[in-house]
Amino acid sequence: MDRIFGILIKQANNVIARDADKFAQTLDLTGMQISIIDYISRYENDQNIFQKNIENEFNIRRASATSALKLMEKRDLLVRVPMQNDARLKRLILTPKARRLSEQIHTYFSNTETKISEAVGVENVAAVKQGLKNISGIFED
Amino acid sequence: MDRIFGILIKQANNVIARDADKFAQTLDLTGMQISIIDYISRYENDQNIFQKNIENEFNIRRASATSALKLMEKRDLLVRVPMQNDARLKRLILTPKARRLSEQIHTYFSNTETKISEAVGVENVAAVKQGLKNISGIFED
Repeated sequence: MDRIFGILIKQANNVIARDADKFAQTLDLTGMQISIIDYISRYENDQNIFQKNIENEFNIRRASATSALKLMEKRDLLVRVPMQNDARLKRLILTPKARRLSEQIHTYFSNTETKISEAVGVENVAAVKQGLKNISGIFED
Repeated sequence: MDRIFGILIKQANNVIARDADKFAQTLDLTGMQISIIDYISRYENDQNIFQKNIENEFNIRRASATSALKLMEKRDLLVRVPMQNDARLKRLILTPKARRLSEQIHTYFSNTETKISEAVGVENVAAVKQGLKNISGIFED
């Protein structure tokens, strides 16, 4: 019987998340933490990063983002610094410790991306990525 | 900047899982429970279903499967019946209660599948599904 989309996506997500957790453990971090470090380090040159960006990027609820970021602050991976013109807005800035780790983390994600692209088939990458974006779009209210 | 695969898959997985949870709540069930009911009801005519099949289908660990199935037994959604020739092997059989719900559940998943296929574009469905299967393959040990 044909496998349903929901299951195929869940399975792919599980294996990717587990592999990321396994790598993260070697740095004494979690998969979510390395993902957030990688996200900030990729975007911080172009823009200020706020909690809202993390919530959108990882599609996580506000409460989950708050607790993840607070824990990262406690573990000296980032600081949350109020903006001068609006103290309610806090920029997320990586610490030197996170910055040191970010190169290895980036290499890991980059290798993973290559492995996935090869598995999908280079000629299908664009279609698969666009398909996934469209899926995320349809369930949003 | 190009979005990475891991994130796109995670986002798609999140929106699908949330939508399933939302529907499941209307039946006083969880997303995992309706997924398991749907899986068993789709396959039970062709084969015996064991816990191992659930672990493989949903890519979940043994302990998670055990606790999910025990809870479903407690909630009168399925029974775990030892095989006559090997009592360690327990077949999973839906209760009348789950069987009554399974039609609505199947309709929900079938509608979701249609929505996803339309979002992906009918001409891309095969490539995207195959791509997802390949991704699940590469990280397995």
